[in-house]
Amino acid sequence: MSLNLQTHTQHFTNPLYLESGRILEPYDITYETYGTINEDKSNVIIVCHALTGSHHAAGVYEGESKPGWWDGLIGSGKAIDTDKYFVICSNVIGSCFGSTGPMSLQSHHHEYYRYKFPVVTIKDMVKAQRILFDRLDIHRVYAIVGGSMGGMQALQFAIHYPNFAEKIIALAATYATQAWAIAFNKVAQESILKDPDFKQGYYDPEIISQTGLSGMAVGRMAGHISFLSHDSMSKKFGREYKNTDGLYELFGKFQVESYLEYNSYNFTKWFDPLAYLYITKAINIFDLSRGFDTLRDAIRKIQCELHLISFKDDLLFKNKEMQLLDTLLTAVGNTNHTYKDIDSEYGHDAFLVEIDKFDTHIKEILNG
Amino acid sequence: MSLNLQTHTQHFTNPLYLESGRILEPYDITYETYGTINEDKSNVIIVCHALTGSHHAAGVYEGESKPGWWDGLIGSGKAIDTDKYFVICSNVIGSCFGSTGPMSLQSHHHEYYRYKFPVVTIKDMVKAQRILFDRLDIHRVYAIVGGSMGGMQALQFAIHYPNFAEKIIALAATYATQAWAIAFNKVAQESILKDPDFKQGYYDPEIISQTGLSGMAVGRMAGHISFLSHDSMSKKFGREYKNTDGLYELFGKFQVESYLEYNSYNFTKWFDPLAYLYITKAINIFDLSRGFDTLRDAIRKIQCELHLISFKDDLLFKNKEMQLLDTLLTAVGNTNHTYKDIDSEYGHDAFLVEIDKFDTHIKEILNG
Repeated sequence: MSLNLQTHTQHFTNPLYLESGRILEPYDITYETYGTINEDKSNVIIVCHALTGSHHAAGVYEGESKPGWWDGLIGSGKAIDTDKYFVICSNVIGSCFGSTGPMSLQSHHHEYYRYKFPVVTIKDMVKAQRILFDRLDIHRVYAIVGGSMGGMQALQFAIHYPNFAEKIIALAATYATQAWAIAFNKVAQESILKDPDFKQGYYDPEIISQTGLSGMAVGRMAGHISFLSHDSMSKKFGREYKNTDGLYELFGKFQVESYLEYNSYNFTKWFDPLAYLYITKAINIFDLSRGFDTLRDAIRKIQCELHLISFKDDLLFKNKEMQLLDTLLTAVGNTNHTYKDIDSEYGHDAFLVEIDKFDTHIKEILNG
Repeated sequence: MSLNLQTHTQHFTNPLYLESGRILEPYDITYETYGTINEDKSNVIIVCHALTGSHHAAGVYEGESKPGWWDGLIGSGKAIDTDKYFVICSNVIGSCFGSTGPMSLQSHHHEYYRYKFPVVTIKDMVKAQRILFDRLDIHRVYAIVGGSMGGMQALQFAIHYPNFAEKIIALAATYATQAWAIAFNKVAQESILKDPDFKQGYYDPEIISQTGLSGMAVGRMAGHISFLSHDSMSKKFGREYKNTDGLYELFGKFQVESYLEYNSYNFTKWFDPLAYLYITKAINIFDLSRGFDTLRDAIRKIQCELHLISFKDDLLFKNKEMQLLDTLLTAVGNTNHTYKDIDSEYGHDAFLVEIDKFDTHIKEILNG
C-alpha cells in the first residue's frame, strides 16, 4: 500500500495561551499525515519530533532523495504500520518548517517576530497540537510516540492530557533537562549570538539561508558531540586522517573533524538560528514537575499505558533519568507502564539511527 | 620551610629539530622551581602541565591571590614535598607564558610567528624540556608527574627517554587522543577561526587581551563541558536559575550557563588563541605508537617504574584508555608498573580539583 503522504497547514485565529502568560495569536501549524484514518478514528498515532526535526517524519518528497527523519519506523509494514494506522506528525510551534515561530510574520505588522516571539515550552507545543487535533475532529488517539524532545512531548501529553492517548511511548528523553544538556545548548546559543552576521536577531534570512551562519555551525558541532558518545565516535571515526600529509599541518583534518564540518555547515542552510535559540530554550526549561509540588505528583496524573525506552550509551539524556521515572511510577502504584533500556553504542542518536534495535519492541507495544 | 619559588627563562640558540621535520631556532623556555636541589641531584621531580596550564604550578605570586594550578599537591609537607624534592615545571613550547610559541617574535624578523609557527607535538615538548634539563646539568631525575596533557608528556618521557626518570606518574591521560576529545577541540578551533576579530591569526594581541576573543570563549565553553561530566554538572549546578524570573525569558540563565560564561570569557583575557590552536593540535595528534609498528612496541621501551592513574568519571580520556595501557604493559611482561582508577564524580577535572583523592597514592609512590 502507498504511504499516502499528505502535508497540510492549519491556521488558528483563537489565542494560544502560553505557559509564560503570553499569547500567540494567530498561529499556523504545519503537519503531515500517512496512512488512512478509519471510520471510528481509532487508528490514530501521533508522532512528535526532536529539536531540528519537522513534520516530515516519513516518505520521500518528489524530487528529493532524503526520506523523513523516522522513515525506518513509519511506513507500510514497518513498526508504525501505515497500512493499519493513520499517523500525524506536526511541526512544533517555535520551529521553522511552517508552524509559527520567531521568523514568522507578525500579523498586522508585516514584520518578523524575531526576539518579540514569546518563549514557548514543551507544554505549549503539546497544547498547540491538541488544538490542531480538535480542529481535525480527533479527540482521542491510539498512541503517541516521540524521541528526544519528541519524547518530552509524549511525556507531557501523558501528564496534561491523561485521557487523550491510549498508549504513549517516550524514547531517549528525560523528566527534566539536566545541566549537561543545558551546557551543550549554551555553547550553541552563545555561538549564534556572538556571530556578527546574526545581528542580534536582525539577520537577513535570505542571505543566511544561502551562506549559513558560521556561529550556528560551530554550535551545531557541539550538538553533534552531545548526540554521540565517546565509544560511538571512536568506532565511527577512529583516528583516521582525511589526508595523510595533514598530520603536521595545523589545519590537517581528522575524519571526525570533516564529519563535524560537513554536517554542521550543511545544517545552517536548512535551519533557522532564531528557531534554534527558541527550541533549545524550550528544551532547557523542560521539567515535568513544573506546576506540581513534586515530580511524583506530576506522574500520578498519568492514566495511559506508558512505555519508556532509553539507550545505554545516551550521554545527553542518560538512561538513569528514564529509570528514575520508571522507579517513581512504580513507587506511586502505577502498574500500567514498562521501561526498556536498549543496548546501543550510538549515544543519543540511537533513537534515529538504530531503529532495528527497538522497532520490534514498538511493534509489540502497538499490537499488544 | 619556604616553597623557594623561582621563575627563570633560558634562551637556546641551537636548533630544535621537531617531529615534523621543521626546526625551531632560537627558542626560550620559561620554568619555575620549588624546593632546593640536593648535592647529588637525586631529588629532582619534573611536573608537566596541561593544555592551558603554565610553569606556575605551585605557590602564590606577590600581589596575586590565585595559587599555581597544582598547589594542593606541591609544597612543604604536601604529596610532592618541596622540603624533600626539587621540583621543576616548565611552560611547553607552543604555549603563551614565556616559552616560545606562535605569538613569539621570530628572530631577525621582529614579527610574530602566527601561522608560521611550526606544529609541535607532545614529543617535541618533551624533547625541549630534556634540553632544558641538560642546560641545568640535570641528566637523570627522580620522578616525572603530569595530568591530562601533562600525563601525555610523562608517558612520552617514559618511552623516548627510558633512562631519564626513576619513576613516572601519568594521570588522566591516554595512549592516543580519541575522536571524542578531538571533536571537542574542533569546536574550539573552529570557533576561534570563525571569529572575525581573530583576523586569520592577524589579531592585535594587545586588544584581544583586553576585550577577549568571543570565539575562543564559546570554544572554551565546549572545553569546560568536556572536563566535567553529566553527574558532576548535575551535582554542581542542578537546574538552579540565576534569576527566578528568567524561566520564560529567552536570555534567562541557569547557574550552569553563568558558570560557563564567567569562566570562558575570563579565560580569553589570559590565554592566547593561536596558542590554543597549536596546543589542541598537539593533543589531537598525540599517539604514543607513532614511530613504532604497534603500541606494544612503543611501551616495550619503558624501563622506569610507571604509575598510571585514571578517574572513573573522566569522559575526555576514559579510564579504559589507561586500562588498555596497563593491560598491554602486563602483556609485554612489564612488572614495574601500577594502575589505579580513582572513584570520582568530577570528570576529567578531577586531576586538578580532587587532589585529596589521589595525593596519598602519589606520596606513597614517591616515598616507596
